[in-house]
Amino acid sequence: LDALTAVRSDLVAANRILGREEILDAFGHVSARIPGEPEHFLLSRARSPELVEEGDLLEFGLDGEPVADGPRSYVERYIHAAIYAARDDVTWICHNHALSILPFSLSDTSLRPVIHTAGFLAAGVPVWDIFDDSADTSSLLVRSIDAGRSLAKCLGDASVALLRAHGSVVVGRSAPELVRRCTVLDRNARVQQAAERLGTYRPLQGPDGAPWQGDPDATNPRDNRDWEYFQKRAGLR
Amino acid sequence: LDALTAVRSDLVAANRILGREEILDAFGHVSARIPGEPEHFLLSRARSPELVEEGDLLEFGLDGEPVADGPRSYVERYIHAAIYAARDDVTWICHNHALSILPFSLSDTSLRPVIHTAGFLAAGVPVWDIFDDSADTSSLLVRSIDAGRSLAKCLGDASVALLRAHGSVVVGRSAPELVRRCTVLDRNARVQQAAERLGTYRPLQGPDGAPWQGDPDATNPRDNRDWEYFQKRAGLR
Amino acid sequence: LDALTAVRSDLVAANRILGREEILDAFGHVSARIPGEPEHFLLSRARSPELVEEGDLLEFGLDGEPVADGPRSYVERYIHAAIYAARDDVTWICHNHALSILPFSLSDTSLRPVIHTAGFLAAGVPVWDIFDDSADTSSLLVRSIDAGRSLAKCLGDASVALLRAHGSVVVGRSAPELVRRCTVLDRNARVQQAAERLGTYRPLQGPDGAPWQGDPDATNPRDNRDWEYFQKRAGLR
Amino acid sequence: LDALTAVRSDLVAANRILGREEILDAFGHVSARIPGEPEHFLLSRARSPELVEEGDLLEFGLDGEPVADGPRSYVERYIHAAIYAARDDVTWICHNHALSILPFSLSDTSLRPVIHTAGFLAAGVPVWDIFDDSADTSSLLVRSIDAGRSLAKCLGDASVALLRAHGSVVVGRSAPELVRRCTVLDRNARVQQAAERLGTYRPLQGPDGAPWQGDPDATNPRDNRDWEYFQKRAGLR
Repeated sequence: LDALTAVRSDLVAANRILGREEILDAFGHVSARIPGEPEHFLLSRARSPELVEEGDLLEFGLDGEPVADGPRSYVERYIHAAIYAARDDVTWICHNHALSILPFSLSDTSLRPVIHTAGFLAAGVPVWDIFDDSADTSSLLVRSIDAGRSLAKCLGDASVALLRAHGSVVVGRSAPELVRRCTVLDRNARVQQAAERLGTYRPLQGPDGAPWQGDPDATNPRDNRDWEYFQKRAGLR
Repeated sequence: LDALTAVRSDLVAANRILGREEILDAFGHVSARIPGEPEHFLLSRARSPELVEEGDLLEFGLDGEPVADGPRSYVERYIHAAIYAARDDVTWICHNHALSILPFSLSDTSLRPVIHTAGFLAAGVPVWDIFDDSADTSSLLVRSIDAGRSLAKCLGDASVALLRAHGSVVVGRSAPELVRRCTVLDRNARVQQAAERLGTYRPLQGPDGAPWQGDPDATNPRDNRDWEYFQKRAGLR
Repeated sequence: LDALTAVRSDLVAANRILGREEILDAFGHVSARIPGEPEHFLLSRARSPELVEEGDLLEFGLDGEPVADGPRSYVERYIHAAIYAARDDVTWICHNHALSILPFSLSDTSLRPVIHTAGFLAAGVPVWDIFDDSADTSSLLVRSIDAGRSLAKCLGDASVALLRAHGSVVVGRSAPELVRRCTVLDRNARVQQAAERLGTYRPLQGPDGAPWQGDPDATNPRDNRDWEYFQKRAGLR
Repeated sequence: LDALTAVRSDLVAANRILGREEILDAFGHVSARIPGEPEHFLLSRARSPELVEEGDLLEFGLDGEPVADGPRSYVERYIHAAIYAARDDVTWICHNHALSILPFSLSDTSLRPVIHTAGFLAAGVPVWDIFDDSADTSSLLVRSIDAGRSLAKCLGDASVALLRAHGSVVVGRSAPELVRRCTVLDRNARVQQAAERLGTYRPLQGPDGAPWQGDPDATNPRDNRDWEYFQKRAGLR
């Protein structure tokens, strides 16, 4: 029960923080796997992240369907279900439409790590294109568990995937890590966007010319001081 | 009476929300057709949108003239009158000067949908150029019902038209839809501006190379959760 | 006395508004000619504009020297003195370092009007280069009445001049007009910066190819509704 | 004791101001040499700068180790230690990851002074590349006194050095000067980024074509009015 209480509280905090930091706007969502129940996850009812309260949290199975009858849920809950099903190591997921990453979802220029905290991007940032996958492109939304599985397959072992003309999914192993990855991804995209236009842009690489393979965990502060900082900015402390 | 009360309240909310979101600044305006009186619409007296209160709302006919004597009204009220006269399906209109869309009004690069919520732009975004239409370009303002009709003709069946070196008009069928279209238009313009400069930019299209024809309604959330979100940000809840 | 009271109050308001709108930051200043005493003007003691109070206002002559002993004044007060001496029509002046206009002070690309409210730029925006004028370029500051006169000569009859690698001067005939011109100049620079990079950028011109000669007064709203708006945002109402 | 009390208070203020101005975010840090004890400096425990309080300040020696046992300190404290050891003239240091300067750390386009207050950049802005210096690039962090010394050597007599794909170090002789340099550096980088893309960009130079050699002190206002301004914005007055 204690672990669940903590996850529920962190899930509300992550929703509000990512709203405050404008990673999420009216849309997008954050979920968490239920501790000790790996086949279930928590996600808010269909509500804007910055407004989410604990009473809004609903429980879902790995088919993306709610465990119990309840209020309307997000159409794209299948994104979360399919990734939790495919990735045992993942306990937190954010689907967002941050403005900074969208141009990279449209371009042949790949997102790559250009700042020291972005080591988790070194394995590559795949782009999932619904046009390659589905005859139904009326909304570009991930409306079914099959579409979710296609996206999860594209994500593979990566920490981030882009959805062409739509947004991104970011995965993590705790609320602070998820928030850190979302905010670092946003900063990295802003810096890369500017760097690509500034004279000769040198990709980050060692003397041997091989792309940088940063340790994704090397810059995770053990003190979680960014979590304290983001909570303060969101009015949660 | 009930429907009118709701529209008046929503009209004040839409003014304040679009001010808060910086789609409107000191200038620009929002109007709504009067329920059950399709020949009349409501528009504030000449006041900045973010400051509009219910007592500021005035009633106009489809010639753009106020139904009764009253305080000074916006010079460009003819934009609204002419579009309501030409478009039975339109009940809400915003005229704005959002910074993000202005560069596209000056360039040969057309605004096109590059994010999944922008399906309502797939029919095209015409650009109205007052230099093509009028000998009087001293102010570039839409100062007469004739100028308004010229603009309405350029808009045609589209959801958005740009006014060269001036701004845009956005139309909708409810306050939440109008606010959604205005904010999505702004996001789309920001993303496209960045994407155009990022290596090889691929327009959004299917495998057959035909431009994406998104269903404009497919991403309209039935729960209007963005309306709740924007109201909260504007201090209206 | 009444006119002077109004000018003193408007001068504090203009300082605070232009600080709030980030046209001014820690530095920069705003002045007003004293009604009925065209040889004197008011300017704050050396204090950041957003913090200026009525008790900070000092009186200066057209040589740039304070009329009475008092607290430290801005080094660059000569900018104001020399422009008031050269331009009978000017009663309000702002010297600012807005980020948006600085790139145009460094480039051969001239600022030109690209939005409908910027008719006051149609006469051209000269760039004053202290390197052309002075052997002392240690600070690039306008430190003497002679340097001020050189800048005033460059300004000529225009409404705005840029100072290379430094900022701008903007002149007006009232506090609302000065604030309007400063904020429109900023918006125009942002739009032009983006438009220059967006495919083929067409300058604003009539069918005959002649540059637009907008009437600088044509878009000045008689209701000064932008002044009400900016006062509200700055917490002055 | 008085001088120490003032430095401790200024150090908290500088942390909070640079957080408020978004020069620092969750990460980065500010230090000050202890008056009368040039072999020791003050730095917060590992906490986000905007949250730092006087009770968080710890004392370090020039080897980068804390003088006494205590709470966890920043991994990169060696940056400060090595620069204080190498530079007698430096009493204040900020290590930050401001977004505006990061693209210049990745590019062959050098940061150079393009605004009048940036004379302290005229001596050049070296870029330190950990890939040139260390076999351990797992985190790109400055994790040892040896890495700190390498960075200090690269900084030399300059006021600012960039850390490739990581951030910058800025040095000063007082809290107001450090804050001024950090905020001017940020403004300069924004202006240069935009100017590089705007047609033909002319570097700042005299008629003889030699780069501008501004006096770094010439624009330091004797009244420290920017310090008052930044304190007010950070809620410290």
